[in-house]
Amino acid sequence: MNQKIGFIGLGNLGTPIALNLIDSGHTLYVYNRTASKAAPFAAKGAIVCDSIADLAKQCKIVFTIVSDDAALKDICEGEKGLLNHLGKGSIHVSMSTILPQTAAELAMLHRQHEQHYLASPVFGRPEAAAEKKLNFTISGEEEIRKQTAPLLKDAGGLNVWDFGDNTTAANTVKLCGNFLIASALEAIGESINLAGKSGVDAKQMWNMLSQTLFNAPVYVNYSNIILQKKFEPAAFSMKLGLKDMNLVLQQAASASQPMPLASLIQNNMEQMVNNGKGNIDWSAVSTGRTNE
Amino acid sequence: MNQKIGFIGLGNLGTPIALNLIDSGHTLYVYNRTASKAAPFAAKGAIVCDSIADLAKQCKIVFTIVSDDAALKDICEGEKGLLNHLGKGSIHVSMSTILPQTAAELAMLHRQHEQHYLASPVFGRPEAAAEKKLNFTISGEEEIRKQTAPLLKDAGGLNVWDFGDNTTAANTVKLCGNFLIASALEAIGESINLAGKSGVDAKQMWNMLSQTLFNAPVYVNYSNIILQKKFEPAAFSMKLGLKDMNLVLQQAASASQPMPLASLIQNNMEQMVNNGKGNIDWSAVSTGRTNE
Repeated sequence: MNQKIGFIGLGNLGTPIALNLIDSGHTLYVYNRTASKAAPFAAKGAIVCDSIADLAKQCKIVFTIVSDDAALKDICEGEKGLLNHLGKGSIHVSMSTILPQTAAELAMLHRQHEQHYLASPVFGRPEAAAEKKLNFTISGEEEIRKQTAPLLKDAGGLNVWDFGDNTTAANTVKLCGNFLIASALEAIGESINLAGKSGVDAKQMWNMLSQTLFNAPVYVNYSNIILQKKFEPAAFSMKLGLKDMNLVLQQAASASQPMPLASLIQNNMEQMVNNGKGNIDWSAVSTGRTNE
Repeated sequence: MNQKIGFIGLGNLGTPIALNLIDSGHTLYVYNRTASKAAPFAAKGAIVCDSIADLAKQCKIVFTIVSDDAALKDICEGEKGLLNHLGKGSIHVSMSTILPQTAAELAMLHRQHEQHYLASPVFGRPEAAAEKKLNFTISGEEEIRKQTAPLLKDAGGLNVWDFGDNTTAANTVKLCGNFLIASALEAIGESINLAGKSGVDAKQMWNMLSQTLFNAPVYVNYSNIILQKKFEPAAFSMKLGLKDMNLVLQQAASASQPMPLASLIQNNMEQMVNNGKGNIDWSAVSTGRTNE
């Protein structure tokens, strides 16, 4: 069913998701802090809004996908934010990777405004979005999960994984997932470094591993990227990876759970960012230590 | 074609591999340091040998699979070892996980005795061996690789991956593989700890992850084992895991390649072994830090 959908955040991943919604027949009301990114959507039939308030007034459902907790809070709070301008009963579908605690806080604020907040962080790189092969994880009110799941399929979701009533659950799962991916990147990188330095053709080694023990998308895709050193343009930048590892460790601290591997990766990513590598792909995480 | 095959090392993994060779119609000459492990093979039609020398004299091809470099060197060297008692032109098929350098040294010694050494380390847990789903990696002389590959299929190899002439290559690949598995174990464990402490059902989370981003055997099997805390009996013990991480870091040192993740895992496994956890499954590597 064609719906009027607000969409805020036309970045690397937001762009293909927004295009999927348009392709699925929905009318999109788009807003982006950097207005030049919104303009091209007009040609696709989207309505470009001048402000969040303007967008919020016209839509009963708004998707957001921005880079961090602060950006999302900016969109929601303050004079011109979603909270003040969305109508009663409206739904905020929040796809950003943020702290579970931030999700809980925003859900409470929306509730106070008689609005709904659905946590719906997403797994998948931009090319997976274009192919409609994303995996959404959702948590929040049951009725809202039911209503929104079909729209997330329209947005490019191959699957929508339901984590129940507790708003924080989906964001915890997303942080665990990104930590697991980052761990795989570090491990793939170290294995390639060791093989290469030991006189083994790392490409041949990964040809075997990615058909056998590690025949999963994360390993298949990233071993290719790391072997080819295709770190630019970044599909997901080192800076964003570092941000996520910081979130993972914040969550770990609040749960009193040591995560030495997450700490190691955070440290490596921090060094990369400090060495001017913040804008290359996060899969370069373990290339800093090779002399090649 | 039915062959007389010597088999030394009837441990957790050696046993199902030896049984596969018998099932494939070969006549097995078995020897094990702990003789009680060899005795049951007599009932299966194998010839139980009293010594390595006795076994070596009767076979043109000998498989070995033992726990470490020292045990393998013991089998080869010394008065009663394979080198002194294998006939000229015989083949030593060496499945143990050892240092690449040890493989190079043994290959040289066999060459000096006009014998052949094939590096053929193997990926797979005992249950995979029983199902004939092992992955062998081989490196060594071309003619010997060709001759031996069919026997490795008889031994339970779903695949035999050829890494060429350089004897050390297959063992380097095996060390990289075990490092990658150990990395996955640590990451899975940390993710389960974090999810649990954050109020998320880790089983539900892994139900998603093992169908999507991480739908590879390593993650599917080990996330189940770690979620169920089924660490006994060990299919591959923490002690052996630690031994392998020590080999990985020795290889890394000799290649002047830092491997911080391998160091972290070695450290964790060392702590587990020091805390009396040496005989449980290595997948318990990241359980030492949870208070549960």
